[in-house]
Amino acid sequence: MREWEKHIRKVEPYTPGEQPLEKDIIKLNTNENPYPPAPEVIKAGREISGEMFSRYPDPEAGILVEALAERYHLSREEIFTGVGSDDVLGMAFLTFFNSDKPILFPEITYSFYEVWADLFQIPYKRPKLSDDFRIEAKDYKVENGGVVLANPNAPTSIWEPLEKIEEIVKYNQDSIVIIDEAYIDFGGQSAAALLSKYDNLLVVQTFSKSRSLAGMRIGFAMGNRRLIQAMNGVKYSYNSYTMSQAALAMGAASIKAEEYFRETTKKIIEVREWTKKELLRLGFSFPDSMTNFLFITHKAVEAEKLFCWLREQKIFVRYFKKPILEDYLRVTIGTKKDMELFVQKAEEYLDLTK
Amino acid sequence: MREWEKHIRKVEPYTPGEQPLEKDIIKLNTNENPYPPAPEVIKAGREISGEMFSRYPDPEAGILVEALAERYHLSREEIFTGVGSDDVLGMAFLTFFNSDKPILFPEITYSFYEVWADLFQIPYKRPKLSDDFRIEAKDYKVENGGVVLANPNAPTSIWEPLEKIEEIVKYNQDSIVIIDEAYIDFGGQSAAALLSKYDNLLVVQTFSKSRSLAGMRIGFAMGNRRLIQAMNGVKYSYNSYTMSQAALAMGAASIKAEEYFRETTKKIIEVREWTKKELLRLGFSFPDSMTNFLFITHKAVEAEKLFCWLREQKIFVRYFKKPILEDYLRVTIGTKKDMELFVQKAEEYLDLTK
Repeated sequence: MREWEKHIRKVEPYTPGEQPLEKDIIKLNTNENPYPPAPEVIKAGREISGEMFSRYPDPEAGILVEALAERYHLSREEIFTGVGSDDVLGMAFLTFFNSDKPILFPEITYSFYEVWADLFQIPYKRPKLSDDFRIEAKDYKVENGGVVLANPNAPTSIWEPLEKIEEIVKYNQDSIVIIDEAYIDFGGQSAAALLSKYDNLLVVQTFSKSRSLAGMRIGFAMGNRRLIQAMNGVKYSYNSYTMSQAALAMGAASIKAEEYFRETTKKIIEVREWTKKELLRLGFSFPDSMTNFLFITHKAVEAEKLFCWLREQKIFVRYFKKPILEDYLRVTIGTKKDMELFVQKAEEYLDLTK
Repeated sequence: MREWEKHIRKVEPYTPGEQPLEKDIIKLNTNENPYPPAPEVIKAGREISGEMFSRYPDPEAGILVEALAERYHLSREEIFTGVGSDDVLGMAFLTFFNSDKPILFPEITYSFYEVWADLFQIPYKRPKLSDDFRIEAKDYKVENGGVVLANPNAPTSIWEPLEKIEEIVKYNQDSIVIIDEAYIDFGGQSAAALLSKYDNLLVVQTFSKSRSLAGMRIGFAMGNRRLIQAMNGVKYSYNSYTMSQAALAMGAASIKAEEYFRETTKKIIEVREWTKKELLRLGFSFPDSMTNFLFITHKAVEAEKLFCWLREQKIFVRYFKKPILEDYLRVTIGTKKDMELFVQKAEEYLDLTK
């Protein structure tokens, strides 16, 4: 082994869901939006001039920050933007979690939290969820170096009411509490409503789900000026220009396309509710999702086998080969047509294995 | 002070050059390319479908990595891509510089190296350049935890011959040596030629200068598989999807637009050589630039005053208020017309202050 190999940072990377290149598959494995972004968003990208491409983007991401500030009734100084919410969350971990006390996040949640903690050598503890996958406030009312909660949680799909979130934020006024709201636009109520009361709260959202822009990598955080300033300090110390001209233009246009946003999220919620009924009919059970995916299990079905069988039928869903999760599949809500096919195939599998 | 404020990471962020929003200025302050990207690059961006935008990009950046591998006669496993070379370099610091020994980079160089070292708490030493701003190989033949050299160096504009680079790489086989070649396409010879001989060498380049894509944030590194694999491990532990669909499509198209690339870099070199002659005529002196900028000084001129005066004339150049650098201005090579105006204004200022 070469000497330099000893000094390579040891990591256990997150495994993202597959991005298969075939065209004729039904892709229900990475919680993307089945609808394209609004026409005016695509137009905004296509209107960028050659000269704009050759210039560095505005390091302050002005047009995007301004659009977000207006939409969420905050000031520009209360908004941070990054390359997807993963960049925003990673930057928040690096910025805020520098105490010796462990940070807290649930045992079952977005698996990147553990990866970032390992990457930046942050100590952590992972309280268990209740048997029905709920976050219990008491578990977060202990000494800690920070708290991170996905709400709605993933892959459970459960949204916790704001009262519970507020109880945790209120108790932890000596720590930063991050609420990761990747799925909030599908029926939950955002903790942004608590921002005016608590200066230790950071709310993170993404354009990858409800805004149909996973491909453009845009995420943001909302918090008080001191938090946003600290995050920007760290960001400018890593990479001054993270948001491309295209991400800025399309992101800003997306925020302005409010009606399209409402229509498409409404459609996804309707299809989700339809899918829930159909899956109940087939004997599946699942937490009551407030996201764009369902976390399903079936007493008569081995999840991994169903996963593989669906894959053969060119329907990709997500399977996590981990304790507890291994009895479940995470299924993104696609178009009505996608979900009809999914339900039909699930029914076919149940018939086959009866 | 709130308890959580004590645990905020302390940083002294890099100050990027201004990105003024006015339209009628001559912008010679951030070493951007005065030409737009090739028409086929813009076309590649405009052809991205709505569906592509709503899907996560390929986390392996396949089309871009493949185009780069082909262009530089390497395998895909020898290429890493990131959000500008700042992201690539920052990721390399985080991945490779984890020993207790100090890393080495010149006292005068790209100021981000110091910022990253501080951010990630990496010890460092900064050997002085010679009086004529040259890197001296002997300074890098001492115990270290890594070496980082910009070649050509910034803001000096000097390119060091490959023999000197090889001497440093060869001596340091226990350390990773990073050669940051942001400006290599303007006349220098890339250390990529040494990759087959040394497994401790990482060569970093960017699309922001010679490829007219500063606005799209694309950088890359070339090195042996073990190095690239380690960087990808860290990258996947931070953010799986950093390159947007637009960056992937436009970056790949840019690599294929070889003729346009050759033409525009040739034009910039020609204008640079013309500008050198004119500035010599006016009594300026400067190192012999192999970049798309000149690092100029004048015995009869206070650099800061000329900087301010040019700004009033709507010509933005770069001024660093730091020891040694404070007698110089860094002037990006724009179009011939830009540089004619710059020379004319510089001459006007000299006449005014005679």
